[in-house]
Amino acid sequence: MSEMNQTWVLRQRPVGDIKEGDLELVETPLEPLKDGEVRAKTVYLSLDPTNRIWMSDVDAYLPPVGIGDAMRGGGLAVVVESKHDGFQQGDVVNTGLGTWTMYPTLQGEGLAKLPILPGVPLTAYMGPLGATGMTAYFGLMDIGKPKAGETVVVSAAAGAVGSMVGQIAKIQGCRAVGIAGSDDKCKWLTETAGFDAAINYKTEDVGAALDKHCPDGIDVNFENVGGQIMDEVIARLNDFSRMPLCGLISTYNATGPVPGPYNFSNLLMRRTLVKGFIVIDYFPRFPEGIQQMAQWLMEGKLKFETDVAKGFENAPASLSRLFEGKNLGKLVVECSPPPA
Amino acid sequence: MSEMNQTWVLRQRPVGDIKEGDLELVETPLEPLKDGEVRAKTVYLSLDPTNRIWMSDVDAYLPPVGIGDAMRGGGLAVVVESKHDGFQQGDVVNTGLGTWTMYPTLQGEGLAKLPILPGVPLTAYMGPLGATGMTAYFGLMDIGKPKAGETVVVSAAAGAVGSMVGQIAKIQGCRAVGIAGSDDKCKWLTETAGFDAAINYKTEDVGAALDKHCPDGIDVNFENVGGQIMDEVIARLNDFSRMPLCGLISTYNATGPVPGPYNFSNLLMRRTLVKGFIVIDYFPRFPEGIQQMAQWLMEGKLKFETDVAKGFENAPASLSRLFEGKNLGKLVVECSPPPA
Repeated sequence: MSEMNQTWVLRQRPVGDIKEGDLELVETPLEPLKDGEVRAKTVYLSLDPTNRIWMSDVDAYLPPVGIGDAMRGGGLAVVVESKHDGFQQGDVVNTGLGTWTMYPTLQGEGLAKLPILPGVPLTAYMGPLGATGMTAYFGLMDIGKPKAGETVVVSAAAGAVGSMVGQIAKIQGCRAVGIAGSDDKCKWLTETAGFDAAINYKTEDVGAALDKHCPDGIDVNFENVGGQIMDEVIARLNDFSRMPLCGLISTYNATGPVPGPYNFSNLLMRRTLVKGFIVIDYFPRFPEGIQQMAQWLMEGKLKFETDVAKGFENAPASLSRLFEGKNLGKLVVECSPPPA
Repeated sequence: MSEMNQTWVLRQRPVGDIKEGDLELVETPLEPLKDGEVRAKTVYLSLDPTNRIWMSDVDAYLPPVGIGDAMRGGGLAVVVESKHDGFQQGDVVNTGLGTWTMYPTLQGEGLAKLPILPGVPLTAYMGPLGATGMTAYFGLMDIGKPKAGETVVVSAAAGAVGSMVGQIAKIQGCRAVGIAGSDDKCKWLTETAGFDAAINYKTEDVGAALDKHCPDGIDVNFENVGGQIMDEVIARLNDFSRMPLCGLISTYNATGPVPGPYNFSNLLMRRTLVKGFIVIDYFPRFPEGIQQMAQWLMEGKLKFETDVAKGFENAPASLSRLFEGKNLGKLVVECSPPPA
């Protein structure tokens, strides 16, 4: 195999937004495969808010990516060469917590081959059946514990996680209210995804809109964003409410200290349960989550969108779509044509 | 009975600290008792941070005290007259969520008479066996879920709740570290109450002291105070830590918005569980808590102090001791001589 590999390497830690020069695209010759290894070609690279966390030298849930190291990330790839009995050319695999590299070399041992489900497109494995789907499922079901008739609010509602949270809430018999950043997203949430209401935080008074759309208060706040919107939601929590703390995307690019919610004391008064979680904590339970989400998907109960950016070389620039709120649904970079 | 009754009435809502004129001492003639009623004379009035919350027109866990209404509060009282078969003169009762009144008229139905336990002084029913003891017990055991070998940090550690939290943590086999506001309090915590370490937040660098005294990080933060100290603790939480959110006394006198913890995002990264709670939520489980605390008390495993202010007429002024951090242990007002 004479082809060169391409890898995005972290050259310096971004200050605020990611800028050119923070990451560098490096070419290296491909090494010959060893026994037990599999070589794949990246089809979709998953872009997630957590990529940005990993670039900062902060005390997060995983160590930061080292300067000079390949950027951490994963996605779907198709096997191009195999020295492991379990895999052959054309198999589609999930590269998990891998790196931003065009031709990842993977250990066959423990590698996940995608199941084939009737009528389920490959992109579903990046969304409802991927890490973001599992984030929504376990965060809502295990921490939020929604009961029929309750009101569930989710921020970044048109994103990969938020869009699933609202739909799972509906399946549980709840009222689902989403907060998103454009009229198009809000329209998608109510007209396609079946949310009861959607609030455009860029044009509406979020507090007033929450009052209107959550007449019985808020029982579950699935938090993805933080900042002022979170404060408005916390102010309207019901007694014994639950708040799965999934993300705080509004703060990841911050260059200085960010105050916590001004309504923090309401968490005490309302006896709210707040629980931070990271989807990898639920890894042992993924089969359960995937089975349930796949069933709902095949029953037509889960709608999802994939926001496809093109070209491995555009990965860093595409990541900014998340922070600018441009994506609808799961953001991926298509790095090579998906198998038919 | 010709004696007059005295009651503290809320005249205006305090702005910041309680000032003279916010409450007024009102005299009224005692009405004749009706069948089923019991009249008692207040012995100890319980002063707690929550009294201050009730004076503000905020959305708390109970409605605020109305302007012109008797101040809410409770304590221990001795029966002086009874028209209920279950009570006779000299019985000591817990007035629960009553009012700041010298001669409360109580319904005999559902009224709690204190049990007699050998060697247990009356003041124990205001502390370890009272609401503050139950707050410590259920907050730590039910939310904090301390495991042997873990590190438990508690703020306002020399207060009625905090002092019990650390001692229960020790009984559970944990390392107990208290944060308090004077060298005398810290000395009491380590030398009498058996805490492993105590930090004087007024004279020490709290972050550096936590680093020193919590070499393995912090597994449980029993939060009573809020503000900057809470931030220092949150910064040092371990993965899967728990944070019973019991009080935020540093904020109760605030006259403007108070930012939440600047380290809020660490609750996500560390997958911390934060749970607001109010002791009255545990009321149905009080017998369980009292039984366990009484057993530990009789075994000599719980030390407690009572900070006794004198005179019903000094109740409002004495309340400020809590906010100035002057009390060691449970703050009460002795309104009449305790029965022998």
